[in-house]
This record gives sequence, structure tokens and C-alpha cells, in this order.
Amino acid sequence: MSSKSKVLLVGSGGVGTIASYALEYAGKTTVTSVLRSDYDRVMEKGFSINSCDYGNGLVFKPTNVVNSVEASKVFGPFDFVVVATKCLPEVTNMIDVIAPAITIDTAIVLIQNGIGIETEALAKFPKNVILSGVSMIGSANMDGHIEHESPDMLRVGYFNNQNITQSHQEAVSRKFVGIYQNDKNECVYDEDVKFSRWRKLVYNACLNPVCALTGVDIGRLEIWGGVDSIIRKAMREVLAIAKSDGVILSEDVIEFMIRSDDPVYYRPSMLVDAEKQNLLEIEVILGNPVRIARKNEVNVPYLTIIYELLRIVQSRTMEEKGMIEIPKERPVPK
Amino acid sequence: MSSKSKVLLVGSGGVGTIASYALEYAGKTTVTSVLRSDYDRVMEKGFSINSCDYGNGLVFKPTNVVNSVEASKVFGPFDFVVVATKCLPEVTNMIDVIAPAITIDTAIVLIQNGIGIETEALAKFPKNVILSGVSMIGSANMDGHIEHESPDMLRVGYFNNQNITQSHQEAVSRKFVGIYQNDKNECVYDEDVKFSRWRKLVYNACLNPVCALTGVDIGRLEIWGGVDSIIRKAMREVLAIAKSDGVILSEDVIEFMIRSDDPVYYRPSMLVDAEKQNLLEIEVILGNPVRIARKNEVNVPYLTIIYELLRIVQSRTMEEKGMIEIPKERPVPK
Repeated sequence: MSSKSKVLLVGSGGVGTIASYALEYAGKTTVTSVLRSDYDRVMEKGFSINSCDYGNGLVFKPTNVVNSVEASKVFGPFDFVVVATKCLPEVTNMIDVIAPAITIDTAIVLIQNGIGIETEALAKFPKNVILSGVSMIGSANMDGHIEHESPDMLRVGYFNNQNITQSHQEAVSRKFVGIYQNDKNECVYDEDVKFSRWRKLVYNACLNPVCALTGVDIGRLEIWGGVDSIIRKAMREVLAIAKSDGVILSEDVIEFMIRSDDPVYYRPSMLVDAEKQNLLEIEVILGNPVRIARKNEVNVPYLTIIYELLRIVQSRTMEEKGMIEIPKERPVPK
Repeated sequence: MSSKSKVLLVGSGGVGTIASYALEYAGKTTVTSVLRSDYDRVMEKGFSINSCDYGNGLVFKPTNVVNSVEASKVFGPFDFVVVATKCLPEVTNMIDVIAPAITIDTAIVLIQNGIGIETEALAKFPKNVILSGVSMIGSANMDGHIEHESPDMLRVGYFNNQNITQSHQEAVSRKFVGIYQNDKNECVYDEDVKFSRWRKLVYNACLNPVCALTGVDIGRLEIWGGVDSIIRKAMREVLAIAKSDGVILSEDVIEFMIRSDDPVYYRPSMLVDAEKQNLLEIEVILGNPVRIARKNEVNVPYLTIIYELLRIVQSRTMEEKGMIEIPKERPVPK
């Protein structure tokens, strides 16, 4: 009888696939991966992976591969259900998606960007531990081939659930770190993961959206004056919202984030998504922070206006994907 | 000997070509038109025109067609030099371009959008009359074919030149109206053309840039909430800047402009230009108004941020057109 942990992984993009690889590589886990578009290909020949952490030319198939959460249940019950999808709450409630696989002993691990991503999980599973994973990684999935270019560093803590003791939530967090950490990656327990999440947002809420809206990489944005005229101001707004939410970030983080891609003309993921006409994570990256700002009466014109512009872009993408329709004739007020 | 007025016309797009047609049609003018990309085609077979004012299937060649301002001089001296190009001061100083054709008796007629477009003309020709033409027209030039879809309505006044009596400037304005007005169009002397220019900007500084940035027409922008979240606020900012510049616009103009394209999913010209990766008139539509706001201490976050975003888009377009270059490696501060 196996003493391995059982992990269900939902969302096998660049982040999720390396997470499943890391978990299996560490040897303490059997991973069941729910795939959709990659299912047939991975069933047949696995993922191909070039990884800065694990080496190139790898072929990888998680222990179990299924094409739905329902189908995963025969491999449960799961100790952890890891959600590593893009976070698009306006399109999909991922907590509803994973619900069939959740038992009272399952911890939900959200390895996703943004603020306020835990709301649905805490509401639907008020007695479960909800972990917060803040990932620093450069990794992309291109039709089943994973190009993993910058090291996997994962900070893990918990979204505080007042129905559960903090010591238990910490123990579950540390258990996940224990099965994820291996000799190639870096996974740590973060006792202030809320701080880490806001800190990462300084980059994500500013450089990602502005590059996506203007269609340029971060280097060009800086050369043409946009880092001065837009980014520093928007980043200061993130610091102000974080402060209103009880998180004090040092001003230094602004220059740190601006310089973090030197000397590359780096194309942030939201720019790449915009060019592919993919949906963008605007609600958790911008919408929720802007709503917190409004509630706490923090004035954030840059983030607000950039969010409002990107909401229109998002609707355009949804129409292009056939997810929404508009009337044939433009509606006119009476 | 002809008693006709002599007009040099620079910029034969949708607006300029209909202007040259209107002037010749009225019978009081010989037009010399400076063409660049359309020169060969128009020399050979003229413009083809479908016009809501003048009829369809027209073929039109101005009296004189030349390929440079220098070459136009044999047809001068000109009573009026009409500039109907897009206004891109960061790329071309049109006053330098037309300078060879200007005599002390020439009035310069700027039929262009935006605020502050007269600065170079007044500086370089302090003794000449500078007229301000505010055009309401729907007309586009597609490779020498003009599709003129909504009526030509032109308001003409003068940018006040303190070196010249107002009565003379008014007389010159009225003279231009007299040669432009015909039985098909509507051209009026406007004693407060500054008001008309700011009024038109309410539409142009808001709907044009936001549609260009988000890639959607005005109908979609409204359906998806952008008119509420962005446009009305930006338009109120235009009213505030105008007020600081001595022009009082009624709040009613906001709903008038928002409704002015009903019931069409109208694609404003700047959206069309953005999709064609053309340069955008951001300096005179947004940049100059934002600078006036700054000078007069008017808080205009929407216009400011939209301008700053579009400046990046403009630089991207200039790089794509080979007008600017960036260093091969991203510059890094020491």
C-alpha cells in the first residue's frame, strides 16, 4: 500500500505541468492530471519538456491522466487539489469545476496570480484548507511541449480560514511544501504569503496590462517613456492599495520590478496572450485590486482606467470567441 | 484674365479632395493640388468619387496637379493655401512644407482636427491670416477613390492674429466661405470657431482614442459599458479644459456626441487608422489639450492616461514604419 500523497492537478499549462513534474520527481506523490485540449496527445506520447531545472528532451506523463474531474475520482480521495489554470472568474468558476473531487480532508491549492482568488473556495468549502501558491517561473505550454526557461520558485502559505486553527493550516501548507520541494526546485513555506502575493502584483498589475494594451514589450515601453509616464505611477497605486489592505511594501520594490527583466526586451505573458487574442486575467490582476481601492477610498486612476480599457478588450475577445453576442443593430435609447 | 481665386490644396484625403471638388464646383476658384502617393494615378485618370453631396461615379481632376509645393509655385501666387492633411506635428511641420507657396497676401487655411494646430503657422507667418476650418464630413480616400458618405459641413473662422485687425481677418474668412459655399454643401462663417473646435474635440478626444486603444466600434464600446465607465468621464474632462481655456460648452454636448452615430456600429477614423497601423493624431487631439489642462491646473486623469498609452502605440507604429529605431540590446541604467 502506497504512503504517497495523492494530488489532483487541474490546469496543465507552463506552470501546472512543471508543478506536476516537480511533485512526481520528488517521489512523494502520485499526480492525477486533468487535461482537456492536450488529453489525446499526452495520453499517446506524454508532454515533451525542455526545462532549466530538470533538463532538456524530457518526456513526461503524470501517473494518471484523465479528461474530466469526474473521471479523476477513481484515483482519489485527494490530499491536495492543485488549481494552476489562468484565473478567469468571469468565465469559469474553477471551484465548481473541482468540487466533485473535494472531500473534507482535501486541501485546495491555488497556484494562480492576482488578489481575491480565494473568495469562491472559502465560500464553497468553508471547512477546507485553502493554500495560496505564489509562483515565480518562466514556463509556457505550446501544444503539449513545455518550454521552461526560468527556475521554478514557489512560495506556499494559506488563505486564512477562520473555521480552522492556524496551526493546522500551517501544517497543511508545510506538508505541501514537503511533497513539492525537490533537489532541483525551490519551494518554501511563506508565513506571509499575502505579502508575497501583493508584491508580485506590483509587476503583474502594471507591466502586464500596459504592455498588453499598447502592444509593446517592457524594453520598448521604457525607451518610449511609458515606464516613467505610466508604470511607476501605477505601481505606486498598487502599493497604496496593498497598504489599505494591511500589507506594507517598500518603495524599493518598484525599481526592483522594473529592472527584473534586464537586459531583455521582455514580452510579459499578458502581452503574449493579447496578441494571441486569448482572454486576460484582468479581474484578479486589476479588477479586484481596484474594487479594494474603491472600498478603502484609495485613489487609483491609472489602475482604474487601464482596467476599464482592458474590460472592453476582454469583451471583444469574448465576442471573437463566440462567448457573447451583440444585437444586430446597435441599441439606441428611447 | 481670370478673376478666380487661386487655392493651393495640400492633403487630398477624404476631406481635402471633397474640399477641392467643392471649390472648383462653386466656380470661383482654380485649385492646384499637391499630391504624393496619388500623383501618378490622378494625373492619368483623376480621382473617382462617390459623393452624397455631388453624386456617384464622378471623375475629378483639379485644375492643376503637382507633386510638390515647389512645383506648385508656377500656378501661384495663391490667395489661400489649404492644409487638409492629418495633423502630426511630431512627424511633419506642415508649415515648413507649405512655406515656399506663402506670400504676404496668402491666407493659410487649416482644415484639421485638434487644439493648438495654429501654433507653427502663427510663429512662422506672423503677418498672415490663419483660418480655422472645422469640418463635419464623412469621407475617405482609398487609393484615389473617394467615398464621401456624410455631407460636407464646414465652419470657417480665424485663429486670432494680433498683428492684423479683426475686421480684416473676418473679411478673409468670409471670402473663403464665399468661394467654398456652393448649392450642394454647407459652409458658414463662424464668429466663434474656437468654440466649434473645442466642441468637436468632445467627440474626437474621447471616442476616437478609446476605440483605437480597445479595438472596438462605438456601439460595442457602449454595450460593454465603456461609454459609462470611460467616455462620459473623459468628455467631462474636455469640457473642463475648454472652460479653463475660456470656452463654455453645455453638458448636453456629451449625450449629443455619444448619440451622434446612432444606430450604427460606427468605427471612428482613429480606430480605422489604428487597425491599418497608421499614425494617429494624438498630439493635437489629446496631447495639446492635456498640456493646456496641466498649465491651467485642471485634473484630467482619463485624457492623460489615454494619451500616455497612445503615445506608446504611436512609437510602436513609428518603429514599424522604420521612422525610429531602438538599440539592439535593451538599455540598462548603470
